[in-house]
Amino acid sequence: MTGCGPVIVLVAAAMLAASRWNVNADRMLGCESLDCQSIPAVLASEWTGAKGHQTIMRPATQSRTFYSRRCAMNFCPNCGAKVNHQIPQGDDRPRYVCPVCKEIHYQNPKLVVGVIPEWQGRILLCRRAIAPREGLWTLPAGYLENGETAADGARRETWEEARARVDALAPYALFDLTFVNQLYLIFRGAMISDDCHPGDESLAVGFFTEAEVPWEAIAFKVIEETLRRYFKDCATGVFPFQTGRIQAPARKD
Amino acid sequence: MTGCGPVIVLVAAAMLAASRWNVNADRMLGCESLDCQSIPAVLASEWTGAKGHQTIMRPATQSRTFYSRRCAMNFCPNCGAKVNHQIPQGDDRPRYVCPVCKEIHYQNPKLVVGVIPEWQGRILLCRRAIAPREGLWTLPAGYLENGETAADGARRETWEEARARVDALAPYALFDLTFVNQLYLIFRGAMISDDCHPGDESLAVGFFTEAEVPWEAIAFKVIEETLRRYFKDCATGVFPFQTGRIQAPARKD
Repeated sequence: MTGCGPVIVLVAAAMLAASRWNVNADRMLGCESLDCQSIPAVLASEWTGAKGHQTIMRPATQSRTFYSRRCAMNFCPNCGAKVNHQIPQGDDRPRYVCPVCKEIHYQNPKLVVGVIPEWQGRILLCRRAIAPREGLWTLPAGYLENGETAADGARRETWEEARARVDALAPYALFDLTFVNQLYLIFRGAMISDDCHPGDESLAVGFFTEAEVPWEAIAFKVIEETLRRYFKDCATGVFPFQTGRIQAPARKD
Repeated sequence: MTGCGPVIVLVAAAMLAASRWNVNADRMLGCESLDCQSIPAVLASEWTGAKGHQTIMRPATQSRTFYSRRCAMNFCPNCGAKVNHQIPQGDDRPRYVCPVCKEIHYQNPKLVVGVIPEWQGRILLCRRAIAPREGLWTLPAGYLENGETAADGARRETWEEARARVDALAPYALFDLTFVNQLYLIFRGAMISDDCHPGDESLAVGFFTEAEVPWEAIAFKVIEETLRRYFKDCATGVFPFQTGRIQAPARKD
């Protein structure tokens, strides 16, 4: 892998000037042990291209495990009996049904909420520290939790993944991902300052114009689609609510 | 209860002219055994007001039971062991965690999708045949199912509850109902014809202008809020995407 040297030099210089990895004037700091071997070539070249965007990296740590969101059900969560998978009376599709306590266990899509954090003509992206797509770039986003509004969930994810605060959230895009039973709801959000640094699930955070976005190293198709529509709307300054459907990635076998 | 007589007479007259309760020229038919005692006074008076809106009722049948959507979990759906409710390492809120297979069982809000079906200056409402709020009026709406897009789910609900077909769905409103861990996503939808009749979960369906809507007999606050915003936007002909939060109803104890 070539071309990582300049980045490491730059980061090392920044670290010398910073006592904490989340505070630095030139917004390029904090990478203690960046493993260039794990960076896709296109991403490394994007970084070494150094077109002026700002990237903040965090000390390398062991990646957190990816939490699976299981759909299959073997036992009744209510009474512990083995469940059947059958079409309940009056229904039109199979559900997990408990033959003992009669509970029908419905399973429904989950909502992922996220933000396009905006700051002075750039947007904030996070480089993932966790599977899937570790090392690739994304918007701050994650599952909405019980008890929180969609906007509050999006703000929380922005804080957790980029330690950034966003305000004035405006709903921007809704995408169906039926192949994983998910919907993505993405807000536009104005950052209240340029304060940010990688949270536990991010290796780095950075500010990007359209030209600076590492398009070949975006973690998820839904995020790439969101960003392409967003930058198109930026050209007009009008941001109508977007909807769309993301198809399952083609199998490679 | 007073004031039901004219409705029953009108319905009876319509039935004489109709061989099937879903086909009738004057769109007022099909009520075989309407129980006026179950109708809130305001709703009955709205009906007898007979301001020209069209209502189609279905033969009375036993109401379907309301399916609870349980949050509490006692046993692991994966291995059947008794679960603990604890904050997993690296997390910030309690989850159901299996001490045996180590599965963490996340629980997230559910998305309710619905439609404002539009037909020639009126909208279609359904009178609920099931708890909760049996006998009150609502828009066709229900839980999004795994494997379907939000728009497809909204279309399905419109078919199931009102046997109506809608096209050209446009997202209109998103409401947070954190007190029940739900989000409502409501589309505007053009009916492809005025064909409609009550599905299994509806007692009646009808077309309403703003003045004809039985405002005091709307089943849910989120539906009333949606309709009030919708009719306000109708006045301008501009329908910006709406968001809001519905607070829990005040307790009456």
